[in-house]
Amino acid sequence: MLLPEYEMKSRLKKVQDLLVAKDLPGTLVYYDELNIANGWYLSGWCPQFESGCLFVPRQGEPMILGGPESEPFAKTDSAIKKTKNIPVFMVPEEEYPNATISSFAEVFDEIGIKGKNQKLGVVGLDKMPFGVYQLLKKDLLGIGLIDITTEYEQFRKIKSPWEQEQVRKAFAIADQAFQMMKPLVREGISEIEIAGAGEGKARSLGANWFAFKAIVASGERTSGVVPTASDKKLQIGETVMMGLSPRYNGYAGVFGYTMVVGGKPSEAQRHCINDMVEAYRITKSNLKPGMIGKDINAVTHEFVTKQGYGKNIVCPFAHTIGLMEAEAPFFGPNSNDVLRPGMTVCVDVSVFSVPDVNGVRFESAFLITDKGPEPLSPYMDQLILNTKV
Amino acid sequence: MLLPEYEMKSRLKKVQDLLVAKDLPGTLVYYDELNIANGWYLSGWCPQFESGCLFVPRQGEPMILGGPESEPFAKTDSAIKKTKNIPVFMVPEEEYPNATISSFAEVFDEIGIKGKNQKLGVVGLDKMPFGVYQLLKKDLLGIGLIDITTEYEQFRKIKSPWEQEQVRKAFAIADQAFQMMKPLVREGISEIEIAGAGEGKARSLGANWFAFKAIVASGERTSGVVPTASDKKLQIGETVMMGLSPRYNGYAGVFGYTMVVGGKPSEAQRHCINDMVEAYRITKSNLKPGMIGKDINAVTHEFVTKQGYGKNIVCPFAHTIGLMEAEAPFFGPNSNDVLRPGMTVCVDVSVFSVPDVNGVRFESAFLITDKGPEPLSPYMDQLILNTKV
Repeated sequence: MLLPEYEMKSRLKKVQDLLVAKDLPGTLVYYDELNIANGWYLSGWCPQFESGCLFVPRQGEPMILGGPESEPFAKTDSAIKKTKNIPVFMVPEEEYPNATISSFAEVFDEIGIKGKNQKLGVVGLDKMPFGVYQLLKKDLLGIGLIDITTEYEQFRKIKSPWEQEQVRKAFAIADQAFQMMKPLVREGISEIEIAGAGEGKARSLGANWFAFKAIVASGERTSGVVPTASDKKLQIGETVMMGLSPRYNGYAGVFGYTMVVGGKPSEAQRHCINDMVEAYRITKSNLKPGMIGKDINAVTHEFVTKQGYGKNIVCPFAHTIGLMEAEAPFFGPNSNDVLRPGMTVCVDVSVFSVPDVNGVRFESAFLITDKGPEPLSPYMDQLILNTKV
Repeated sequence: MLLPEYEMKSRLKKVQDLLVAKDLPGTLVYYDELNIANGWYLSGWCPQFESGCLFVPRQGEPMILGGPESEPFAKTDSAIKKTKNIPVFMVPEEEYPNATISSFAEVFDEIGIKGKNQKLGVVGLDKMPFGVYQLLKKDLLGIGLIDITTEYEQFRKIKSPWEQEQVRKAFAIADQAFQMMKPLVREGISEIEIAGAGEGKARSLGANWFAFKAIVASGERTSGVVPTASDKKLQIGETVMMGLSPRYNGYAGVFGYTMVVGGKPSEAQRHCINDMVEAYRITKSNLKPGMIGKDINAVTHEFVTKQGYGKNIVCPFAHTIGLMEAEAPFFGPNSNDVLRPGMTVCVDVSVFSVPDVNGVRFESAFLITDKGPEPLSPYMDQLILNTKV
């Protein structure tokens, strides 16, 4: 499951070129299990229990600044092998009698970054815990922090051929998990049993984790936008919303699907489900290179509003998928982002708190190509498009 | 899966009594999916995708400060029903056309906390993302923040009868997952297949999530302390380390177990596994009310060192389990924490990077009672104690 060396080197070069352009001697990249993307991008790895930073110098080898529980784990699994332990990334109050512990100050000193006129890049500053920031600030001894998150995250927008392959595999796993879950939808089963069956299948097929806890919600709970599965039992006639996002080599796949327990929708359910399938089709048809985010959004927004669901819209209808299930660019009502070949984009249409229906969501994703959107899951794309209740 | 009202009210009273004692008009409690505990303690709930704070006033009803994707989800699942949306807790760059959005300043204003001489409590400040802290600081307009995390976390050390029941259920789920995983340990299966089987089983039994990704590691990977399962295939004679931590109603259960693929250990494996079983027995025998953390640690540390594994110790041997799999008090070499009835404590013995063995871990937990340690998993406790290879 390792990040291939050529892929890591090509990414490292992009980052180091950015450091040259910004005239920075190096950058810290913060990451943890909730914000894996920026660290994973270079290392193909994330610690568990602990958090950490990557340190990327302008030239030469990057290193992991983490904790002693992760050090040997990083050595086997990460594409970055050089490590140092910094106390602030460890489990608070836990003690490690044999660990060699450094401070940020020692690391900066060793690298030769020192003194008031120096600057250092930082990626993920907004997500860095305040405790980490405070210690970092103290150890910087006057070194200025330059936030280069926005520039760094640009590298993740267009997916390389290897990345596209991982995303495809993640979608293939999601498909098989869905095929395990769908037949379980029946009166009396609990939401969490369906979730467990799908997640267990996805893991057994090699999913290295999930971008979110399985969404399996029924009845009123479908209005929860991203409701995790509970022990509530499904009842005949209820709307059921399902979503799963397995990661493969860190890259997320996803599906979103909605059906009615027992297969006999009410008039309200019938209208809403069919309308959202049409909203999915409309959004997909606009995923052409050169399209601008807010224009993609506007067309679907107008259609959904016209069908009477304007006030039931919570989220916009298209967003990028990659190392996070939903990551920039987001193609919402104010987005000027341009759709470009190599982007992997979810059509994610949903409405919530609809009277006599509750929530409906359909989601699948596409690789943007010169010729238009190419389904990352031809299976789920067709299934959604052919849903007519 | 809701937190019972009587349990929530008794916890709320403890927090509000603390606010009176500290002369604070209220406190913010930060939480997210990685740091669920302090928020979950009062709400029995955590958002996904978004993060948030609870606001607890000195008197009256607490509220959730979160994002618009979580608002309806909180209404169905959280013990705290009053909600407000604050932009900084949302997915960055995502847009929500219909949401009602407040600022921290508006919330404080409405509550009547205003002006330079006011103070406000905060729990989880160290874990709060820097971006959230910055916005909060700006909106505070001079209100001072008083960190009461340490005092607040005291409430979680002794488990109520209801909490003990949840922990027991989590351990019962872990046991059944283990019984699914253990027979799968054989040549040629991948680590992740075993992980998937255990996690899927745990979820189907009602686990609301996991405190960590399943540890299934073989050969050299067992030295990774907390290695997540990979697609590596098991080979005859390799050491295999397994760990799973399902949550039930938020409370974690856990097991740690180590065996040899094919069941024929080498001399080095035999010694190490048998010695660690003995280390487990010794640590357990010291879990008596009144014992001090560093004393518990010292006895096992001396034994493990005497057996030749002193430099292979990474973690101390006992820690508390609750809303986090490992939470304070930690009974490490400098711990003055006193073991008290009502604590739920893991015996977690491990050594890593042992020549010709790699890593070995045995873990199960006990409720501390007046009479001594009572196994939270009698099954796993006996299994470990009877392991002799």
